[in-house]
Amino acid sequence: MKIRDLRFVEKKWDFVKPFHIANSVSSSKVNIEVELILTDGTVGLGEASPSFRVNGESESIVKLQSEMLEAIVGLDVRDYRKVFKKLDAYSKSAPSLKAAVQFATLHAFSRIVSTPVYQLLGGMKDFVETDKTVSIGSLEETVSDALEIFEAGHRVIKMKVGEVLQSDIERVLAVNDVIKGVKYIVDANTGYSPKEALRFIDAMYRNNVPVGIFEQPVPAEDFEGLKMIRKGSMYPVGADESARTRYDVMRLIKEGSVDFVNIKLMKSGLSDALAIVEMCESAGIGLMIGCMSESGIGVSQSVHFAAGTGAFMYHDLDSHLLLKDVETIGFRQERDKQYPVLF
Amino acid sequence: MKIRDLRFVEKKWDFVKPFHIANSVSSSKVNIEVELILTDGTVGLGEASPSFRVNGESESIVKLQSEMLEAIVGLDVRDYRKVFKKLDAYSKSAPSLKAAVQFATLHAFSRIVSTPVYQLLGGMKDFVETDKTVSIGSLEETVSDALEIFEAGHRVIKMKVGEVLQSDIERVLAVNDVIKGVKYIVDANTGYSPKEALRFIDAMYRNNVPVGIFEQPVPAEDFEGLKMIRKGSMYPVGADESARTRYDVMRLIKEGSVDFVNIKLMKSGLSDALAIVEMCESAGIGLMIGCMSESGIGVSQSVHFAAGTGAFMYHDLDSHLLLKDVETIGFRQERDKQYPVLF
Repeated sequence: MKIRDLRFVEKKWDFVKPFHIANSVSSSKVNIEVELILTDGTVGLGEASPSFRVNGESESIVKLQSEMLEAIVGLDVRDYRKVFKKLDAYSKSAPSLKAAVQFATLHAFSRIVSTPVYQLLGGMKDFVETDKTVSIGSLEETVSDALEIFEAGHRVIKMKVGEVLQSDIERVLAVNDVIKGVKYIVDANTGYSPKEALRFIDAMYRNNVPVGIFEQPVPAEDFEGLKMIRKGSMYPVGADESARTRYDVMRLIKEGSVDFVNIKLMKSGLSDALAIVEMCESAGIGLMIGCMSESGIGVSQSVHFAAGTGAFMYHDLDSHLLLKDVETIGFRQERDKQYPVLF
Repeated sequence: MKIRDLRFVEKKWDFVKPFHIANSVSSSKVNIEVELILTDGTVGLGEASPSFRVNGESESIVKLQSEMLEAIVGLDVRDYRKVFKKLDAYSKSAPSLKAAVQFATLHAFSRIVSTPVYQLLGGMKDFVETDKTVSIGSLEETVSDALEIFEAGHRVIKMKVGEVLQSDIERVLAVNDVIKGVKYIVDANTGYSPKEALRFIDAMYRNNVPVGIFEQPVPAEDFEGLKMIRKGSMYPVGADESARTRYDVMRLIKEGSVDFVNIKLMKSGLSDALAIVEMCESAGIGLMIGCMSESGIGVSQSVHFAAGTGAFMYHDLDSHLLLKDVETIGFRQERDKQYPVLF
């Protein structure tokens, strides 16, 4: 049951269509697949989807393989907190790899005891329901994308905003005019100033747009701005880019800056994500779970985490639907529902 | 793997000698042993050591058996967070039973997958080192008890104080005169006023007594008093009676009231205890783990929790040593070391 080897393989994925969020457009993504190999040959899987924009991760993190292996080789995966602790050293430099190797550790443990990871984490839910994301585009594109998502069965639609205030408002209102019975997560990805953010969310309120969360309106470092927007907003305000580590979230809680936190394994790894779940539940802060650009294994990680802990009001686990030719592994997707399975 | 039955058996234990803490003396203790029975016959064990003084638990809690069974019957123990959640309903009325049944759930899971509970919880440490407690007594008794504890191999000695300030100080100083190379946890069990507490801890400081934690100097509700003592004390101040639920601890953290929290499963159950571990680690608050008057199974619960999470700087898991005729089960005691085992 001891860790013998660790393999990293880079794999490039194309987006079905260019993914446009505030001040960033992507047409493809290079992820790192992880295999953790035990002395008895058991293999644990994981996937890192690094982010320069959010985590500051460069492409060179794949070169950490030998150093990470050295840190954890010989440890028993059943002593998973020992492995987690060693990998916490990479919280700053390579959080997505920390996440992937931490998951691979639990996954290897899961295979040894023939118990799916989501049950090792508590088995709180049997499935979760994911939203799907409309990226920034023309008014027509936005409405047609949103309709397609609605028809595919999603009842939470995530809309990317945060670029040009007036057209952001128009796009959301146009969608809200044609689709009823859904909730929206509006995500500015740090794109607004505090006052723009207040004008945006006030427009949502005056037009009765059912907003579940107004996500990360202002830059990651602007905790004071978040707090001001929280006070001035009739809808819940959430932190994403501001909430990477458990320490970020402790500060958000102490300062009363947000109503919601968006946990992503790629930002926090499993260790900090577990801590953030417990902290937010204790502080009455709501939780959503999101993703970067993970493919099948990566989204599995989050489906197992979300179902296992059962901690999330909203699930934004759709990146496998935005990339081409992804094979889901570790969960079964039925319309908007995601059922974790032993894999 | 589903829960079929739940059995509670009351069992009376005598103390080796009367256990005297601030304003309370006990010569025996009635605990409740728990058996959780699954559909396949697997049995999970647990033990509750109720406390009227700390938890407000009356002897009638044993009558909750049928109600608790009804809440969890049919649940799969591998979905342990579902069971935990149901039992959280008893956080106010019967936290010690909540703890025992939550542990029995993990213990049944542990037996199914032939993996000890401490590894299901992370396997962070292979053993822990416990202190042992000197209860309140005459100067001679105190010194001879402390010497006996030192000779048995303990290097942390817990001393009960909080009753008569001047004689409390004299007793600790007398012990410190004859024993070198140990640390002391001084526990007032809510017995002092804030100013008495400051005088006590100042006497410790002026006499170079190596105090690891000054535990619960003032009444449970006096968060402001704790904060004042924390500011005025050169040694770390800890909360015990003030820190029962995850919500208590969130408030202690937000208000900056303490340096340490004493987690006891009997106050918090496993669910809140896990949350408190993550919260305190995120806030830079130190942790110790304590016990009520558990016998062998009950102390096992805490040894597995402490070793699994690896979160504690101090372990005060000695109640099985203070009661007569306790058979340790679930761990091996070697001098002050406690090694969790599969049971």
